[in-house]
This record gives sequence, C-alpha cells and structure tokens, in this order.
Amino acid sequence: MSVKVGIINVTGYAGSELAGILHAHPDVELVAVTGRSAAGKRLPEALPYLWGIDLLITPAVEVSVDVVFSALPTAASAEALAPFIRSGVKAIDIAADFRIKDVAEFEAAYEKKHPAPELVKDAVYGLTETNRDAIRKTKLVANPGCYPTGALLAAVPAVKLGLVKSGIIIDSKSGISGAGRGGLSASTVDHFCEADENVVPYRLEGHGHLPEIVQELKAQRAGFDPRVTFVPCRVPMIRGILTTCYADLVDTSLTGDRVREMYRDFYKDEPFVRVPPTVPQTKQTTGTNMCLVYPTVDRRTGRLIVVSAIDNLVKGAAGSAVQNMNVMCGFEETTGLRSLPLYP
Amino acid sequence: MSVKVGIINVTGYAGSELAGILHAHPDVELVAVTGRSAAGKRLPEALPYLWGIDLLITPAVEVSVDVVFSALPTAASAEALAPFIRSGVKAIDIAADFRIKDVAEFEAAYEKKHPAPELVKDAVYGLTETNRDAIRKTKLVANPGCYPTGALLAAVPAVKLGLVKSGIIIDSKSGISGAGRGGLSASTVDHFCEADENVVPYRLEGHGHLPEIVQELKAQRAGFDPRVTFVPCRVPMIRGILTTCYADLVDTSLTGDRVREMYRDFYKDEPFVRVPPTVPQTKQTTGTNMCLVYPTVDRRTGRLIVVSAIDNLVKGAAGSAVQNMNVMCGFEETTGLRSLPLYP
Amino acid sequence: MSVKVGIINVTGYAGSELAGILHAHPDVELVAVTGRSAAGKRLPEALPYLWGIDLLITPAVEVSVDVVFSALPTAASAEALAPFIRSGVKAIDIAADFRIKDVAEFEAAYEKKHPAPELVKDAVYGLTETNRDAIRKTKLVANPGCYPTGALLAAVPAVKLGLVKSGIIIDSKSGISGAGRGGLSASTVDHFCEADENVVPYRLEGHGHLPEIVQELKAQRAGFDPRVTFVPCRVPMIRGILTTCYADLVDTSLTGDRVREMYRDFYKDEPFVRVPPTVPQTKQTTGTNMCLVYPTVDRRTGRLIVVSAIDNLVKGAAGSAVQNMNVMCGFEETTGLRSLPLYP
Amino acid sequence: MSVKVGIINVTGYAGSELAGILHAHPDVELVAVTGRSAAGKRLPEALPYLWGIDLLITPAVEVSVDVVFSALPTAASAEALAPFIRSGVKAIDIAADFRIKDVAEFEAAYEKKHPAPELVKDAVYGLTETNRDAIRKTKLVANPGCYPTGALLAAVPAVKLGLVKSGIIIDSKSGISGAGRGGLSASTVDHFCEADENVVPYRLEGHGHLPEIVQELKAQRAGFDPRVTFVPCRVPMIRGILTTCYADLVDTSLTGDRVREMYRDFYKDEPFVRVPPTVPQTKQTTGTNMCLVYPTVDRRTGRLIVVSAIDNLVKGAAGSAVQNMNVMCGFEETTGLRSLPLYP
Repeated sequence: MSVKVGIINVTGYAGSELAGILHAHPDVELVAVTGRSAAGKRLPEALPYLWGIDLLITPAVEVSVDVVFSALPTAASAEALAPFIRSGVKAIDIAADFRIKDVAEFEAAYEKKHPAPELVKDAVYGLTETNRDAIRKTKLVANPGCYPTGALLAAVPAVKLGLVKSGIIIDSKSGISGAGRGGLSASTVDHFCEADENVVPYRLEGHGHLPEIVQELKAQRAGFDPRVTFVPCRVPMIRGILTTCYADLVDTSLTGDRVREMYRDFYKDEPFVRVPPTVPQTKQTTGTNMCLVYPTVDRRTGRLIVVSAIDNLVKGAAGSAVQNMNVMCGFEETTGLRSLPLYP
Repeated sequence: MSVKVGIINVTGYAGSELAGILHAHPDVELVAVTGRSAAGKRLPEALPYLWGIDLLITPAVEVSVDVVFSALPTAASAEALAPFIRSGVKAIDIAADFRIKDVAEFEAAYEKKHPAPELVKDAVYGLTETNRDAIRKTKLVANPGCYPTGALLAAVPAVKLGLVKSGIIIDSKSGISGAGRGGLSASTVDHFCEADENVVPYRLEGHGHLPEIVQELKAQRAGFDPRVTFVPCRVPMIRGILTTCYADLVDTSLTGDRVREMYRDFYKDEPFVRVPPTVPQTKQTTGTNMCLVYPTVDRRTGRLIVVSAIDNLVKGAAGSAVQNMNVMCGFEETTGLRSLPLYP
Repeated sequence: MSVKVGIINVTGYAGSELAGILHAHPDVELVAVTGRSAAGKRLPEALPYLWGIDLLITPAVEVSVDVVFSALPTAASAEALAPFIRSGVKAIDIAADFRIKDVAEFEAAYEKKHPAPELVKDAVYGLTETNRDAIRKTKLVANPGCYPTGALLAAVPAVKLGLVKSGIIIDSKSGISGAGRGGLSASTVDHFCEADENVVPYRLEGHGHLPEIVQELKAQRAGFDPRVTFVPCRVPMIRGILTTCYADLVDTSLTGDRVREMYRDFYKDEPFVRVPPTVPQTKQTTGTNMCLVYPTVDRRTGRLIVVSAIDNLVKGAAGSAVQNMNVMCGFEETTGLRSLPLYP
Repeated sequence: MSVKVGIINVTGYAGSELAGILHAHPDVELVAVTGRSAAGKRLPEALPYLWGIDLLITPAVEVSVDVVFSALPTAASAEALAPFIRSGVKAIDIAADFRIKDVAEFEAAYEKKHPAPELVKDAVYGLTETNRDAIRKTKLVANPGCYPTGALLAAVPAVKLGLVKSGIIIDSKSGISGAGRGGLSASTVDHFCEADENVVPYRLEGHGHLPEIVQELKAQRAGFDPRVTFVPCRVPMIRGILTTCYADLVDTSLTGDRVREMYRDFYKDEPFVRVPPTVPQTKQTTGTNMCLVYPTVDRRTGRLIVVSAIDNLVKGAAGSAVQNMNVMCGFEETTGLRSLPLYP
C-alpha cells in the first residue's frame, strides 16, 4: 500500500530531484507539488525534463497527504511545515530550520527569526546512519545539510571511536548545484561564465552549516568538545561534494589500513556508506544515495585524513530525505534509491 | 639588446606556455625549441595554436644560447641541462631536479636516481619573492613546483613573522593542466570524461612537492620545524590552483584585518603578489603571473586560514621562470608578463 | 524467467553503461563480462563505480548465455560475435560491423576487412522505431551508431511522409564520451585540457556513420535518393548529441505547428521518442533512453529544420541495445530503461 | 601621442574585455568608464579582476574623449552615443543599433524603436576585412555582431568569388559569454547547472543577427540574393564561436585544396584572418583577435563547407572594436591585440 506524498517547493534543484525519485518510488503516490511563480502550470511546463510527472503546481498542498517534504528556503520552510506538523502528518524538512537545537544559535547562523521555535525540540536530526532509531519513531525529521552529511559520515567514526583529538579541519569542495537554482536572483556568482574554470572559496568566517556539524560531533562522545574549522569552496561541476577532514590522532601508531578496517566495521550494516579500497572521487556517486568514506593516516605527522564523496542533491538532500521517509514509513530503506552512479 | 634563448621540450604545457611568453618578450630572441616525437616539424605544425612562432623543432639545442629553459620530466631535465650548466649558460629548470638540497630525499620523493647530484648545491630555489638576491647572482635556478608556489606565498609571511605554530595543513585544488599533456600515456585519469564533473584527491600519502614545501618553510625561520600535511586534489578546470592553508595562531587575539595588514606590508614591493580586499578566486589570475594571497582568522578556534590563487602554468611554471630570467638578466622584472587576467 | 546475458568488452563506456543497465534489469541475469587488459580482475576493481556488480572479468564469454552484446571496436566485434551467431545465440552488436548491407562500402568507410561478411545479410538494423517487427524475429541486431540514431529519428518522418527534397544537411554536436574511453591511446584529443572550452569539428570529408544514415533514409521511401552532407563536431560535455537537420520543403506553405503535429502523429506509439512543445536540449535526456525530436519551419526560406537530442551512451548505444533485447526477448519494451533524466 | 578613450557600460563582458585591451594599448589613455548599478565604485571594486585599472565608474562619460565605445544593450546604446556622434567624437557601437541600414528591419528584428534613426545612414558596418577604407574615413562604426563576424568571414569569399549558389545554411555553436553577463536577470538559462553539460539551440525562427548577415552578403556581389538559414546553439564553454556554413557549389569540380588556395589568396593581407592547414578549433583563438577560416568540399554532394572559429569577446566584440579604432585613428591595425591564444 502506497503513501500519499506532497512536495512543498518543487521547482528548486532539491525539490525537482525529490520529484524524480518519488515518481519512480514503488510505494509512493506523489499527489501534490507546490511552487510560487510556477503555480498554475503543469509540472512539465515549468520543468520540461520532468515530462513524465503530469501534476498541477499549486500554491500550497491542497489535498490530503501522509508525508510532506519541504524544499523551501530557510525560515519559510518551518512556516509552511508547521500546520502539517501540528496535525500529525509526517514531515521531512530539507531546509535548515529544525536542525539546530539551540534556537538562538540557529537565528545567529542564518540571520533569521525562527517562525516556529517550539517545534524544534520535537525534530530528529535526519542523518540516518547515526539516528535511525529515533527517525523510525518521529514524525518530524530535520534532513541534514549537504556539507554536514559528507563531513559527519567522514568524522563520526573517528570521534565515536576516540581516535582523534579535538582540533578538526574540514575542507569541502562542492558542485554549483549546492547553492540552488535560485542563487541567480541575488548575484551573478552562479553564471556559467563566472563559475566555470574557477575555484571559489566562500564564507571563510563561518558557514551556516558549521553549528550543525559541531552539534552532531559533540553528540557522538561524552565530553568531546571539537574545535572545528570548516571552509567550503565551489568548484566547476554540477553535482558532488568532496570533503577532506584533518585531525591529530590520539594514537599515532595507527596505520591507514587499520583505520580503514575500523571504518569498514563501523559502517558494515549501512546500505549507503562504503569504505572503498582506494580514495573516492565525487563522480563515483553521481545520481546515487551513496557516501564513499576513505580514511588514511599521514604517518609523518600523525594525522588522520578522511575523504568523503557524495552527490549533494541525492545523499546531500533529496535522496537522504527519501531514505528517511523509507525508515519513517517502515519501507525497505533502499527503496527507490539508485545504487549505481551515472558514469561517466 | 636581446638575449638568445632556447627551450628544451617545448611540446608540453609548460614548454608551450613558455614559448608563447618568450615569443612576445621584447628582450628575448627565441632561437631554439626541442622536442622528441615532434622533432623535425615546424613548431606550428606540432602545435597549431603557436602559428606565429615559425621555428624548427630540433632533438637538442643546436645553436648558441644565453639562457636555456628545461621543461623536461624529472631526471631527464637535469641530464639535458648539465652540459649547459657546466659551460656557464644561464639555466632555468622547470622540473624538480634542482629544488631539493638533500639528494637522497629527492631520490626518495621521485623514485629516480639523480643524474647530476654534484650540481644541486649550485642551484638557487627560484621563488623570486623569497630568493631574489640569490637569483640575481646565480646561473642555475630551480623553478618552484606549482603547488609549492601557491603554498609558500600563502604560508611564508606567517612563518617568517612567527604568527603560527608548527602544525600546518595545506589543501590544494588544481586544474588538470598541472599534470601535463603527457599524463595521458600512463592512464585515463586526464580523459575529459573522467576528469569533468569530478573532484579527484590523490597522493594522500605524500606528494613529490611536499619535501620542497617543508625545506623552504624551514628556511624562513631559525628553529622552525613545520609539521606539514599536504593533500592535493584535481578539479574540473584547465588552469589554476587554489590553496588553503590552516595553522594555529600563536597569538589568538589577532584579527583577520590585522593579519591582512601584515601580509600587505610583507608583500608591498612585490609586483606579482597581491593581498586583495576579498577572498580570491583562481579565475582572477588566468593567464597572469599574479599570486593572490588572502589571510584571515577563524576567531572561534584561533586558527589562521590563508587562501592563495595562481595560474599553475604561469606563476606556477612558465611565468615565474620568465620572472626569474628577468631577474638573472637584469631586465625589468615584469617584462613580458601579463598583468590582467583573461576573464571570464 | 530471466535470460542469461553476457557483455563482450565491458570496460569501454558503452560496455560499462550496458553493465549498469543490465544489472538493474529485472528480467536479466548478467553472467559474463569480458575484457582484455582487465581480464582476471573483478569488475569493481577495474571500474570502481560498478561496486555492486561483483563479476570476474574474463578474456571471453565462458559460460552459456541466451543473449550476447558486443561493445568491441569495429571488425573485432564481428569476429568475436560470429561463433555466437552461428550457434543461434541472440546477438546485439554495438559496433558498426553489421549495419551496412554493402560490405564493400563498409570496408571503405572503416578501412578494415570485414571478418564475417556472409553474416551481414542476416542482421537487422536495430533502430527499433523503424524496424521493430524485424527485430522481434531476428537473432542478430546491428545496433545503430550514436549519430545515426539522432539523425534518423529527426529525418525519417520527413522523408517517409515526403515532406522534403533530396538535399539534406546534418550538423551534429556530440559530447566527448562518443569517442570512447580508449580514444586516449591514439592521441591527446580527449585530454581534458584539449577538449574543455573547445569546439572541434572533425571528419568533414566523410564520417563512418554517413553510409549508415544514407542507407536507412533510402529505405524509407521508394526512389528517394538523398544527397546527405554530415558534419559532426565535439563539444565540451560528457554525454549527449544534438543534431540539426536542414532540408528544403516540397510544400513551402507548411508551418512549424503543422509539421510538429505530423511528427507527433508519426511517433504517437513510441515509448522513447517525444516531440516536445519547445526546442529540446541534450541535458533533458541525460541518463535516459529518450530521443526528443523537434521539427520547425524557416518560413523565409521554405526550409525544414529538425532538432533532435539524445544521450549518446543510452539511446545512442547501450540503452537502445537493451530496448532491442527487450523486443527480441518479448519483454515489455521499456523494461530497465530510465524514464526521467538526471537533471541538472 | 595617445588618444583619450571612454567606455560606456564597462561592467558587461564586452565592456570589461574592452577595458583590459585598452588599458594595455600603448596609444590609448582610458579616461572614462561608465556603469549604472556600479556607478560610484572604483572599477576594481566592481570587477576585482581589473585590479590594475583604477578608474571611478561614473554614470556617464563626464570628461572629454577622442573616441567613445558603447557596450550598452540595443537601443540604449544609440541613445547614449547620439550626443557624441553629433558633436563629432569618434564612436564605435558594439550593440546592434547602427548595423542594419533598413531601420524598419532593425525594429522588427529587435522589437524596439530606434532612438536615433537619422544617424543610421552615417554608420559604417565595421567588419574591417570588408570595409577598411570606409572605416578609415568614418566617425561612426557599427561593430559587427559576434555571429555575423564568424559567418561573414567564412562566407564572404565564396560569395564574392561567385563560388556558391544562393542557398546558404549557417550553423553556429557559441560559448555562453555571448549572451552577456546580464542574461541572468531574465532567466536561469545562464546558470552553471543549466548551461553545463548541455547543448541548447535557440531562436530557430529568426535570430536578430540574421538581417545583418543577409545585408552584408548581398553587398558582396551584385544581384546575389542569398537564401540564408541561421541556427545558433549554445555549448558549455565560456568563449568561442564555431560556425559551419553549407552551400551548393556552382562548379562541383572544385576541390577542397583549390578552394583553400582561393581563400588564402583572398585573405593574404589580413592580419586577423588565417586559413590554416587543418580544420580549426575555437580554443585556438581564445583571447586573440584572430579568425580562423577553413573551407572544404564535400565531393559526394558538390557542397562547399566552410568552418570558422573566433573568440566571441575579442574578434566577435571588443577586439574588432579596437581593430576598428586603430584603423580610424591611423594606428598600426594590430596594436594592442593579442596574437597568440591562451592555450590550453
């Protein structure tokens, strides 16, 4: 028996990716998609590449749904979801609104007032690999940010197993789709001619995803107070995030082989995390919900280096949202999620 | 009065870039270009885009030259340059052969036997900004590697001014031309379909450029023994290296503004280093010999972050080689070197 | 009940795409994959992105199969397939070997001797949309070339319906994967730095796909003797072919709307051809087996212009091969073939 | 003695390219640059990559100039230039406003009212290669469009020498910068994620550059009434236009070699047109004012095929504008224009 699902704000990259995945999901009936400027159009009229999904884009979800996803921008998302949450519909928020438990910290990081602060405590942070049981029981999932997904899956085992000291440096390289389709209205930074043949570091003094990374790393080990520097940069590709984490090892005699063994053991039951035999590349994940995690040791300096690769629109957004829906609804966790990448 | 110049191995990317720069240089007469498989062809026959440089490609430099550049691979380069060095011709080596003072370390890093170890001590490491006086007096310059150029120009002021502790992490993102045109013969990693839409980390356990970075950082400050981790990755663009350096500050009360002021002062007389008001992007350097260096402070963690951007084929190879030639020959240092980038 | 399938030469782009599609195909059991240099390795060892397909790469198909695909280069393909064809195994050749009925013309176009000329007459040209019934009955399908697929689906209705005169110009723009992964060994034309930021026309004096286009256009209409010029060029993207066809209309009073209506009617039962309301883009087909065809009329000159878009590795190779297998085996024609593109 | 020059609308891609070229031009003093939203800023503040040009961006040219360039959008350009033209300042318009002699046709093509129709008759169409003498004597140059530049330099010799019949098909592939930096405000078509990995045909029913192409082809040969179809498409690169022209030969016994000889003779004194020995690629022109033109013959069909390659921002806009200024001011025609491309 299939569940009825609605997507709030289908016209951005996360929303449209979600539509594609849910349309092909055998246990889902996609019944509502919303949009603002595109409201009143058929979905394929607004997004020609979704020719197979003949739904009307409406200003709001106007039919009954079992599950609702929001791909709205921060703050707008919580506002739109609040009525669903209050009426007991399962809700998955792809925006940042319910990720940070400390509302003041959220408001500082995003420079916005939280529209529904009283609901934050009910939300479960939706990194399936660390919070599966809580996700199974909740009706409100705060889907992780794209950067935190790659960073946490890389760093969590090291922190949880007590392998590293508190100083952690996270250097992430992201494809341009991470900024969303709407980035254009504000500036020209997403213009092909500006983004192509360019590497663009940004928000060196504090990206909105940093509090979320710190909060979740702290949650892994009692008393662990990580000192995290996080610097993202944009590279000229559409999809993918490659994250490199650096931290000093507690036991500098550890080898790369040994750490990879520990990571493999840590993730042995995870359908969407793999520790490959060689260092991963982002293209190996394109279109899939897979996170590739590769730890190694810089023996000269006693540092752990962990590289992770994801598709930011799938494991970093729409795919992990569906993974969470599968868990919340009791479906097989991998249902509807592509297992092999589009390569090349 | 112009100098007569020869280029050994003109057919790679560094060699061909050098040919273009020297062809337009007002004080240079380019009289010889060599190649192996292309020997016997006119230069524009082998490289159609160099239509204006009608020279015969010869197997070796067969005419008298005042300055010789080598863009051969490691080890082959020293072998080809040795006779010129011994006969007193000014020589600039774009390969790694004369960069590392400790020959054993060179041989370990490159897994090759050095063909002329007795000449290494005569070479000056050609980072013009740190060694200008010695370059002026020498006849043998070891031109820096592309990664070390960006990394050193970012880190040297911090080390020399004693701003940071010994733990230094260097995360570099390079365009594909850094691997050279010949990379193809060995593997498919440079194939458009493999390199495009991909971020590819490599040599996590020790890149050949690491000893060079460590040697030069040590040289900046007596007793400074840096503990450097260097991880490069390839991003889908042709030219450019963006380097991000991380290190703990000695004085955590330093601000980003203050550090930028110190860097501006440090580089105030340098024609090819700028400390811009905002974080640089690689595209801002395309085709130029400029290095953009931007330090900032992560106040929460007391870390210095320094970003640098260069065009790897110009400031990272052919351009800095010409800058060094200008210094060695007593020409104006900026002669023949493009000041504004091709943008977009 | 599933069929047992083997792929000869799995390591190229067409072969690896085929492996991915067949692995996910519910009616197929992939039992053999072959390769030359990679023989002896597990498939994911040679191609890490195929982690889920744990088969040994063998030098030849050594187990019993119901269907065999060959993705070998021209001539080698017919040689490898011949024993299977003779023993009655269903065979689908992705190479050019069985496409051209006139063996002399084949040998002139490809400058190779045909290794099994006596088998050519038994082959059915595998453009499903024009030859479905014959494909259903045959055991040997010559899968169309990537360029002919886009060109024929654009031009066939115009020719069959008698809309155009005999002069036809076909201008195709192809992604780099069309040349295959092995292109590198011969030259540097596929090097990222040569292919990126470049448009490269080639084989202006006659591409190997031209005879195939002419043969199939002739087959559409008795007495029609097309005078075809075909010029391909490579553009800096991985997948996709955009083909633009130009021909003078017989009846210059036809409008674009009317022609689109005729095309829609022509393709109304085709699952993998669509005539969209606006001019198509290659990205709208990425990863799918869809061909988008858009005819219009240049009223000032009385010319028909038809644009088509495909993913060259799917509808232009592996996908249409699976479509043909579905027809040959009596499966639902769309089984295992992705309906919505990966976008963006 | 240098001339004083102003640029109206420096902040677009043509304007900023022009600023870079003029800044390095030995006979020019750049004294004024204008912009709308950026007025009041220093040029490097608005466009960081122009760090070396420390001018204030003003709302209008407020100082005396000898030459003025306009890189404004269509219609706005004529309006801004009119006062300069009337007061006898040399004016070069990079917009379309003065290109089409038939004002009604201009207004139909661009769907705008011409703000200064009485000035159109005084303008000289600025394709230097066909109109050099008139350019030398005029004070108002209508700089050609980017597509017409490549198309005309490919087709003019064939038309002028009477080689072809009247049916001409022009298929152009353009980099994204051709649409300008401002394209974004109107739509998302220039977003990296939409433009990358995509080929996008557009304006199949009539591009604004078509009347200009027809007008200038007609001017080459009395009584020649070309029947031109022009279809542009966008390909995922920043700079470059590759144009392929097709036309039936009058004398089908002509060979490719013979036609190339005729073209070489036709262009033998042109500094910025070359007929190379092999088919050109756009990358061979990046950053230069060169147009590469390669004619060949499809012997089977008796068709002439001519391929041309330019950098749309240089020979297709700012470079040819400077070439025209050089002619108008009596400077050496090649002054300040780069001769070798940035490659790769």
